[in-house]
Amino acid sequence: MITITAFRWVPPAVQGLVRDLRVRWALEEAGLPYQARLIGPDVQASANYRERQPFGQVPTFEEDGLVLFESGAILLHIGARSDALLPIDAAGKARAITWLFAALNTIEVVTEQLAGLDLFFADQDWAKLRRPGVEDAVRRRLGELAAWLRDRDYLEGRFTVGDLTMTTVLRALRHTDLLDAEPALTAYRERCESRPAFRKALADHLAPFEGQAA
Amino acid sequence: MITITAFRWVPPAVQGLVRDLRVRWALEEAGLPYQARLIGPDVQASANYRERQPFGQVPTFEEDGLVLFESGAILLHIGARSDALLPIDAAGKARAITWLFAALNTIEVVTEQLAGLDLFFADQDWAKLRRPGVEDAVRRRLGELAAWLRDRDYLEGRFTVGDLTMTTVLRALRHTDLLDAEPALTAYRERCESRPAFRKALADHLAPFEGQAA
Repeated sequence: MITITAFRWVPPAVQGLVRDLRVRWALEEAGLPYQARLIGPDVQASANYRERQPFGQVPTFEEDGLVLFESGAILLHIGARSDALLPIDAAGKARAITWLFAALNTIEVVTEQLAGLDLFFADQDWAKLRRPGVEDAVRRRLGELAAWLRDRDYLEGRFTVGDLTMTTVLRALRHTDLLDAEPALTAYRERCESRPAFRKALADHLAPFEGQAA
Repeated sequence: MITITAFRWVPPAVQGLVRDLRVRWALEEAGLPYQARLIGPDVQASANYRERQPFGQVPTFEEDGLVLFESGAILLHIGARSDALLPIDAAGKARAITWLFAALNTIEVVTEQLAGLDLFFADQDWAKLRRPGVEDAVRRRLGELAAWLRDRDYLEGRFTVGDLTMTTVLRALRHTDLLDAEPALTAYRERCESRPAFRKALADHLAPFEGQAA
């Protein structure tokens, strides 16, 4: 049985954004059953967890003694087991993997900075001074992504783990209206989020938080 | 023949840091011949290049009609062709890939913020206010990485594409003394950089810049 780790609780501002969501989504797309081990700061800091995740983050992935971490690595590992996520042909597979990295290392590196400023540092002077520059960087990347997507339903010819990753990255802008400026991106996000596997994964990600005080 | 793109010129502060370096290094480790197409801002902005790299970045990788971008994706593509970079066994391969993502998405996300502040925004008020927080975040991640490496020569039992990627990420701290605080990391970086493939790749990366005015 596959076991992943996820947080027992996170503040409402980041519920629906933590990186176990993308791993749950991939497992649902691949039809692989799994269980989630919910953890908190005590476990994150423990020597035992650090042996499996040297940086104390979630999610981890564990199966038959193999322990993986980093959501990107876990997504590729799951993807290799299902053509629902990665095309079988070598070129299609390499292109899908290219988009997974673009989501994480070209788009998320700027969207995370903006989300970090807005959700955790909004009252700090440096954040107020810095925000316009970061917003410009986000707008630029979104414009480039929208230009690519203009006549496409998915980043390549069909839904892949690249689209899955990109969708979870775009979600981190939900507290802004930046996506509204690019109708191609809004439609793309809705197209990907309408998949039953996403809706199941999101419900399972959110379930532990319900009924807990903010 | 494999063709990659790289910059015709970059300022001295980032010479030896641009991401074509990691791709050149991987190609040398794998023993794959390649040619570099050197480009500038004109090509980066062109519609033709944007069809191949929607964000205008380097490097791209091209072979037999297949076009890839994102250094992480290119490294995995090259890695799959040589056990010098990725172990053959599935578990060893998945662990190496985990470390490639850790380098990019846990370490580089903070080291790049610090390098960005210091190299491009050092004179701005917000950068002066923000820097201590970013430096703390870098120190914390370096400490966690050093704890993992304490009794290890490499991130896993042998050199992999994970070590290659991590080394290029740590290089971006060369303008600071942060690595000196963690002798395990200094030794690790030197161990990886002493490889002949790295030295060849670095020389080829730097060669076009020589003799050009700063």
